[in-house]
Amino acid sequence: MSDFTLKATVQLPYDETVEAVRKQLGEVGFGVLTEIDLKATLKEKLDEDVTPQIILGACRPQLAHQALLADPSVAALLPCNVVVRAIDEKTTMVEAFDPAAMVSFGGGASEGVSMVADDARERLTAALAALSGSEGSPS
Amino acid sequence: MSDFTLKATVQLPYDETVEAVRKQLGEVGFGVLTEIDLKATLKEKLDEDVTPQIILGACRPQLAHQALLADPSVAALLPCNVVVRAIDEKTTMVEAFDPAAMVSFGGGASEGVSMVADDARERLTAALAALSGSEGSPS
Repeated sequence: MSDFTLKATVQLPYDETVEAVRKQLGEVGFGVLTEIDLKATLKEKLDEDVTPQIILGACRPQLAHQALLADPSVAALLPCNVVVRAIDEKTTMVEAFDPAAMVSFGGGASEGVSMVADDARERLTAALAALSGSEGSPS
Repeated sequence: MSDFTLKATVQLPYDETVEAVRKQLGEVGFGVLTEIDLKATLKEKLDEDVTPQIILGACRPQLAHQALLADPSVAALLPCNVVVRAIDEKTTMVEAFDPAAMVSFGGGASEGVSMVADDARERLTAALAALSGSEGSPS
């Protein structure tokens, strides 16, 4: 059920990938507003061990503002999550919520939301392509 | 396009509603992991004025853990956003991302994700019903 994400497999260890993701998001005009270290949170709350993974809440304020003007309910889909998850010691998965999924909800998206989603999707796709070192990988 | 949210209209001012939402989320077993004051953020970054609104990132760690075991991609949909938005001085809208929307994505949700989404949806619906003071309002 991952039709709602854009993915890239990165040939770097987890910690380096997290830093690379922050940098690439900045390059495409997204800031990181929230961070949830899922591994630390699940360890602390449940004493469960999961693979290292973090949810970065990415936002481009200009796009968020336009989307909210078009449909205030879009706030429930903000910020745009970018998840970084260790696969093994040398490989890391980066998975971003696909802004196109916003538009697929209910089928009633306004034109304003569609335009914003297209813009956000292009930026995130470019970031993922740079991370995976190949333009064909994120899909 | 708000088919992806559960809503409640609350007859309280914004600030009081934000506190009531925090309390009700706790009552149904959700903690708040992230907060984005959208009004403050858009003012600071863009000098734009929008109605008071905040995005609370709500999470029930037990459910998050179960969902991740069923499908790691679910991380891109966590935490569950609960948006509080001022309508006027005495009325506030509370709008939560509907966990059922997780399952509708792509149509390929696993049984594990469905069970978690149902549990989360029941809890959020109960919280919204308590907030609006009527069990019929959130839908």
